[in-house]
Amino acid sequence: MAEPATATQAAAPAVSLLKDELDIVIPTIRNLDFLEMWRPFFQPYHLIIVQDGDPSKTIKVPEGFDYELYNRNDINRILGPKASCISFKDSACRCFGYMVSKKKYIFTIDDDCFYLGFCYYGQKLNPLIVLMGDLDTLVQICVAKDPSGKAINALEQHIKNLLSPSTPFFFNTLYDPFREGADFVRGYPFSLREGVPTAASHGLWLNIPDYDAPTQLVKPLERNTRYVDAVLTIPKGTLFPMCGMNLAFNRELIGPAMYFGLMGDGQPIGRYDDMWAGWCTKVICDHLGLGVKTGLPYIFHSKASNPFVNLRKEYKGIYWQEEIIPFFQQAVLPKDCTTVQKCYIELAKQVKEKLSKVDPYFDKLADAMVTWIEAWDELNPTGPVPNGKAA
Amino acid sequence: MAEPATATQAAAPAVSLLKDELDIVIPTIRNLDFLEMWRPFFQPYHLIIVQDGDPSKTIKVPEGFDYELYNRNDINRILGPKASCISFKDSACRCFGYMVSKKKYIFTIDDDCFYLGFCYYGQKLNPLIVLMGDLDTLVQICVAKDPSGKAINALEQHIKNLLSPSTPFFFNTLYDPFREGADFVRGYPFSLREGVPTAASHGLWLNIPDYDAPTQLVKPLERNTRYVDAVLTIPKGTLFPMCGMNLAFNRELIGPAMYFGLMGDGQPIGRYDDMWAGWCTKVICDHLGLGVKTGLPYIFHSKASNPFVNLRKEYKGIYWQEEIIPFFQQAVLPKDCTTVQKCYIELAKQVKEKLSKVDPYFDKLADAMVTWIEAWDELNPTGPVPNGKAA
Repeated sequence: MAEPATATQAAAPAVSLLKDELDIVIPTIRNLDFLEMWRPFFQPYHLIIVQDGDPSKTIKVPEGFDYELYNRNDINRILGPKASCISFKDSACRCFGYMVSKKKYIFTIDDDCFYLGFCYYGQKLNPLIVLMGDLDTLVQICVAKDPSGKAINALEQHIKNLLSPSTPFFFNTLYDPFREGADFVRGYPFSLREGVPTAASHGLWLNIPDYDAPTQLVKPLERNTRYVDAVLTIPKGTLFPMCGMNLAFNRELIGPAMYFGLMGDGQPIGRYDDMWAGWCTKVICDHLGLGVKTGLPYIFHSKASNPFVNLRKEYKGIYWQEEIIPFFQQAVLPKDCTTVQKCYIELAKQVKEKLSKVDPYFDKLADAMVTWIEAWDELNPTGPVPNGKAA
Repeated sequence: MAEPATATQAAAPAVSLLKDELDIVIPTIRNLDFLEMWRPFFQPYHLIIVQDGDPSKTIKVPEGFDYELYNRNDINRILGPKASCISFKDSACRCFGYMVSKKKYIFTIDDDCFYLGFCYYGQKLNPLIVLMGDLDTLVQICVAKDPSGKAINALEQHIKNLLSPSTPFFFNTLYDPFREGADFVRGYPFSLREGVPTAASHGLWLNIPDYDAPTQLVKPLERNTRYVDAVLTIPKGTLFPMCGMNLAFNRELIGPAMYFGLMGDGQPIGRYDDMWAGWCTKVICDHLGLGVKTGLPYIFHSKASNPFVNLRKEYKGIYWQEEIIPFFQQAVLPKDCTTVQKCYIELAKQVKEKLSKVDPYFDKLADAMVTWIEAWDELNPTGPVPNGKAA
């Protein structure tokens, strides 16, 4: 056996970062063998597993992980009629995990994503090596490395992103000024150098990029092999397509905005759950003076989803987003919206007013947004709960 | 002698890109020995050298370059009383070169910047190697390489940036969607995928970062060794600190906005020439629906300027920018400003109205902005000139 301890040791100092303040939320329909890949990095953390689909099926979680698991029966039992706001047969169900968490930070990841990232052999980027060898060896040889050969840790990078401020009001050309070896460049106003709290950290994907069905169909063989060694704040007033595959956020600062909408079973669209959450989150962050970062860390996305199935799920969204995005770009929240909850309820009202004419679905979605906040507040009463932000 | 042809050959296909449509503008006070470093890449292009300081001094340009050189006497002769808008004893004088050029594209670079960038030896980034060896060897071994080992060419990258569209209205998380191996990600509106014309390409610097004097003083040893393999559009509505060290732009689209202001001799500030141009350019690009990209290419910035001298030049700017930046962030141009010139004259008017109260300098600057446009139009009459954009 090779020396699996190498990777583990390299990652050791990072592993315990925020150990008692962060939950890892994973939506799944299958046994969680993929967790073996992440063992050195995830094992110290608490996992919240949201089981989608048939609740009678038993999901196998590898030994040694500390987790709680919720299936549809649990969701119905805990939320009662309000369970209607949680999607079924769609990974959007993950947001139930955000709601039941009692931690300050959330990291969420899909169950087809490997931490491993990519490997440098000499100067060659070689992501496919992760598909070979036994698991211990994989972890040893394939822990993601930056171009200098230093091992990196996805979760550690998200935590760094979340713990350092964001700079949404002015662009820094050397990217995140809070990273080691970087700073604000000449011409950056000193009054803005303190930054603002970071609410969300959006990580990227090597190998299978997060493309829509039409692009998947047109470019079936395209793989992302470009490692961009950057983290940057998405400027105020700019929307972005937030992907839920590799995402971390500060639950106290922005949790109630991370609603993944109504997707999957009985709904006219899918694959817009994270997009919806991203649009709402960004508008609210901009209003409340919070930051959103994107860039590092990369995860290795192993399996492309079926583009034909995706097209069926997406086609209405592709059409609707042409109206949804201008809606969010123009959305203005009144000054008295001083909490995420108030902002979200206000957004729900505006969705009902302005998007219902696009399709009756948005009327239903606006109602679900309100239900989501009611359920959130029920499970997270403000005031006495240490993690709850005073409303 | 090693084989200098290697680098030359690698760069050969790029060298002739836009050969007859691009001028390289270099402000200088010294002999241009640094051009030897760039010979394989610059020699096919026409250079416009703007000699700053004592016009009686002779600037030596290495043999084989095709150039025109302007000293202060030339500027005075060509512009007459309007020469007052061109700075003296400051690299801001470079914008005279933009004005006299008859080409569609401009690349401007400082005379202390090497193309060489950095070298990978194995996985080690080793920028300092460029200071060793004879020139031919340097060019051979130190042509900038991306992490995969492929030779890159700064000018070629700028041209690629300028020739591909920008995407200022929505953020693409995989950066420039027009680069090879990249595309628009899921959730990017299809109606925005055509992009808009790119007006400017802002390149970065390895080794000495572009820091202000206070940061230089606090971090004298900080060097930028992080190669971020990205190009991205700076979103609409977001300002950035534009550095003039490594910059390219489309003169037809944005040329008249690239005025580097009044700096140096007789002026209360320095080192804000490029910042001023950047703020004006970005506001006008946002208004006219044009794009600005930043990121690649890197140049190797060899020599830090004196932070004490810089502090003297900068200190008023550091103070003033706290008011200038909100001014530009709030500036709105009326709909009838349909050309860069009209936008610029309108900005000059607003500068006079709103910034003169900060310091009488802005009154003078606003007048110089108008003079600059008058001089530009004199040298670039619209209509019959093929490069001029119809007003």
